[in-house]
Amino acid sequence: MTGDQLTVTSIVERAEKFHADREVVSRRSSGVTDRTTYGACARRARRLAGALSDLGVNEGDRVATLLWNQSEHLELYFAVPAMGAVIHTLNPRLFPDELAFIVEDAEDSVIVVDETLLEVFETFRSTYDFTHIIVVTHTGRAPAGTLDYESLVAGAEAADWPALDENSAAAMCYTSGTTGRPKGVVYSHRALVLHSLVAALPDQLAVSARDTVLPVVPMFHANAWGLPYAAALAGARLVLPGPRVDAESVLDLCSYEQVTMTAGVPTVWMAMLAALDNEPERWQLTELDRLIVGGSAVPRAMFEGFDRHGLTVVQAWGMTETAPLGAVCRLPSRLDQSNADEQYNYRARQGTATPLFHIRARDEDGNTIAWDDAAMGELEVRGPWVATGYHAGRGADSFTADGWFKTGDVVRIDPHGCIRICDRSKDLVKSGGEWISSVDLENKLMSHPAVSQAAVIAVPDNRWGERPLAVVARRPGTEVSADELRAHLAQEFAKWQLPDRFEFVDAIPCTATGKFKKTDLRTQFATV
Amino acid sequence: MTGDQLTVTSIVERAEKFHADREVVSRRSSGVTDRTTYGACARRARRLAGALSDLGVNEGDRVATLLWNQSEHLELYFAVPAMGAVIHTLNPRLFPDELAFIVEDAEDSVIVVDETLLEVFETFRSTYDFTHIIVVTHTGRAPAGTLDYESLVAGAEAADWPALDENSAAAMCYTSGTTGRPKGVVYSHRALVLHSLVAALPDQLAVSARDTVLPVVPMFHANAWGLPYAAALAGARLVLPGPRVDAESVLDLCSYEQVTMTAGVPTVWMAMLAALDNEPERWQLTELDRLIVGGSAVPRAMFEGFDRHGLTVVQAWGMTETAPLGAVCRLPSRLDQSNADEQYNYRARQGTATPLFHIRARDEDGNTIAWDDAAMGELEVRGPWVATGYHAGRGADSFTADGWFKTGDVVRIDPHGCIRICDRSKDLVKSGGEWISSVDLENKLMSHPAVSQAAVIAVPDNRWGERPLAVVARRPGTEVSADELRAHLAQEFAKWQLPDRFEFVDAIPCTATGKFKKTDLRTQFATV
Repeated sequence: MTGDQLTVTSIVERAEKFHADREVVSRRSSGVTDRTTYGACARRARRLAGALSDLGVNEGDRVATLLWNQSEHLELYFAVPAMGAVIHTLNPRLFPDELAFIVEDAEDSVIVVDETLLEVFETFRSTYDFTHIIVVTHTGRAPAGTLDYESLVAGAEAADWPALDENSAAAMCYTSGTTGRPKGVVYSHRALVLHSLVAALPDQLAVSARDTVLPVVPMFHANAWGLPYAAALAGARLVLPGPRVDAESVLDLCSYEQVTMTAGVPTVWMAMLAALDNEPERWQLTELDRLIVGGSAVPRAMFEGFDRHGLTVVQAWGMTETAPLGAVCRLPSRLDQSNADEQYNYRARQGTATPLFHIRARDEDGNTIAWDDAAMGELEVRGPWVATGYHAGRGADSFTADGWFKTGDVVRIDPHGCIRICDRSKDLVKSGGEWISSVDLENKLMSHPAVSQAAVIAVPDNRWGERPLAVVARRPGTEVSADELRAHLAQEFAKWQLPDRFEFVDAIPCTATGKFKKTDLRTQFATV
Repeated sequence: MTGDQLTVTSIVERAEKFHADREVVSRRSSGVTDRTTYGACARRARRLAGALSDLGVNEGDRVATLLWNQSEHLELYFAVPAMGAVIHTLNPRLFPDELAFIVEDAEDSVIVVDETLLEVFETFRSTYDFTHIIVVTHTGRAPAGTLDYESLVAGAEAADWPALDENSAAAMCYTSGTTGRPKGVVYSHRALVLHSLVAALPDQLAVSARDTVLPVVPMFHANAWGLPYAAALAGARLVLPGPRVDAESVLDLCSYEQVTMTAGVPTVWMAMLAALDNEPERWQLTELDRLIVGGSAVPRAMFEGFDRHGLTVVQAWGMTETAPLGAVCRLPSRLDQSNADEQYNYRARQGTATPLFHIRARDEDGNTIAWDDAAMGELEVRGPWVATGYHAGRGADSFTADGWFKTGDVVRIDPHGCIRICDRSKDLVKSGGEWISSVDLENKLMSHPAVSQAAVIAVPDNRWGERPLAVVARRPGTEVSADELRAHLAQEFAKWQLPDRFEFVDAIPCTATGKFKKTDLRTQFATV
């Protein structure tokens, strides 16, 4: 009995009691699909908690995971917070030195690794002394010196969930950090429960018992945008794609499992759109109601592209520090009769703050900007699921004296409170005292049929201070010149806003979470 | 700035900032329709709070309202909690001595009365010394000795909302009390915010910015089931019907205002169904997506009746003590392919507990019953918006030692956690050691075409302990005998369960909230 505290336990108990029969599907790296239920996951979570407890995991201890989106990860999402410990999801796409730094910083106790990620684990294993290493096996046995996940669950007594304070820590995730060292963000039980409720609201991600939810966004990245908990709370069917998230694999799953809602970063959907354009009849996607996209700005071309296939892309905005959901962009009824242009321009915005999520933006002088869609300022946020500090007191300069988190996103806000990101504060180009939005230029460049990726960075300029430089990856088999792209941009931008230089590359380097790694581009190109 | 506390202020600020243009419609007793917006209501609420403050209303003070569903009531819903005071909604349909008792018990300070309710107010005015009497006028001026609402709002300075603790009191409502004195229930800010979030979820009442919500359930009754706050949070258009809630008036509003969702007690919908059956083409209800019904059990005939008109009735369960929403009955996807009988039997249940709402039922020996849909026990509930006591420590016997509220509803619970009310604990008939459900008998009786209302009560019996007695009101112009009704019941009930006596009346007495007043029936009929 969890009383009236807002704890993850209440989500776990709800899944166990009310949604016991609802299916949880895991696709393995082998291509095999395993099927279980919330009821089975919740019951196994009780035994898993018993096993972890036997291994010495106490309240407040960090349990690290190196897993894909798979049912065992869901069991850990259930067991670890409900037993009072803290689940710390590791991103296997980080560099070994980053992973080594993170497990040390978090002082993890036990780690649970999928056997397909043992190779990644070996790259940093020797740097840190885990109390126990638990391996989820599918084909073989757990290697010597490690414990077998299934044997542990099979052998342990089911735990009773302790009463917990809603403000205690439940989960932990590190920012992927485009600059500097990763920083740890800790989520309280209260934060995760409120986030789940709000994420499930009709105008947010709209998670219902009638949904089949496929989180392409990894469970090691900002709680898979909170979808596993929101789905368990609502009793939505959950489809976990494992390591294979290429366009064809995701489309196969959407079609075969009759997915109603999926979520991920733009790069995933770009590849998916290309696959659909190529073979429009191959997949049966009549049940697919919405594709949630977030993590970086969505080019208008993506909305248009999916609309051609009768699929609706909905943009959401968030960060690891915001658990992550902060805003969702739903076309308001007042624009129902507007023309396509106005509708696309609106849908390409980052959206309106969710309930309980407070926003403001401040200009360079620290003044709060007007909501007139013209003034630009750095977005600052606060609310029940927004970090008020990083683990171990790091990054204090990311928080204002009055307790707001500085997002680093430079935004305009319209009179209805709808956000439009103009840039990252560090990515803005300031030319002759005027700001140029690199994001606007990138979006327009990516709307050109020959462009697959485009990133705009500031390069120092003796006369103007800074000038924009465009780094462009062309679609295979297409040709386009700098002059042609400049002419394409000139349809919408003033002459002084156009990039002086265009650099063509095969692919733009990305971070582990799919964002353009502008730091690398600056190193490579930003020399006078 | 309301920080991360869960306060009504955050709902008010959200309505003001994000839903400023969304319409709030009030139909007056005159039939005139006034139109305003959330933005205007929220701005006026700031001035109203300033005025109340000038009149001496402090944090924690109770502000009584004697109002219909009207925009001024919404302004008080906004202003009073946000200023840190407590809104105490009075039910004008109570008897004068009940109202006198309630205002005394609550120690109200100021009272706000609609001019159309001055006559009701006069019946108890002399019994209690309000610090100020404020009158909302439409046609005339506020009577001598009272203050005019509009003049107060016009003349005051806008207040800034103070920072509040989420556990402080925000609102207060008295149980209508079928037995005994009314008891006060106090709602905290936290309770109301969590209730609003959960009520708005897709599988609960599903309140979205695209909805137009018409609460027929009065704002003086359990916060109009939380709909005003849920609608303000979501930005749903709000249509407030004023005092006229007869079937034609409600249907006119639904049709003209393109209402998508409405909510009220079964008696309202019964009358509405009769009107629709009578003139099926008169109203244009294509936008009307769902009718939420609660407050007492819904006969299957009502679901069938509205289905004939293409309208979906959804049953919800709650009590004043539960803020009120505790359960909603949505057909689960596993029953999509079931036959009509199974579907209707399911929809006639009270539903599945909402997220964060905990349920259990215990039998006469105090043992928790199995969820097998066979065992019967009294429903006990707890959660963030469930009362843990009544005002001034009254009614302590309604709470268990371990903190659960005893609902008095006797239920069966199915393996998926879906509740079916068999009876009120005080209304169960115990015949020869076996329980007979009066509710089941009533529902079957009301499915007979000649029956408009039916109530079954227990009467003392020398041989069996108790026996059921049916009180029946026939539809005008129809005839039906006791023997015919007994034969009708015998289709579903065993012989020993059939009422021995049938009493025919013109109408069954109801409480102020539309429930059968079985205490009166017992006085009248339950003699050996």
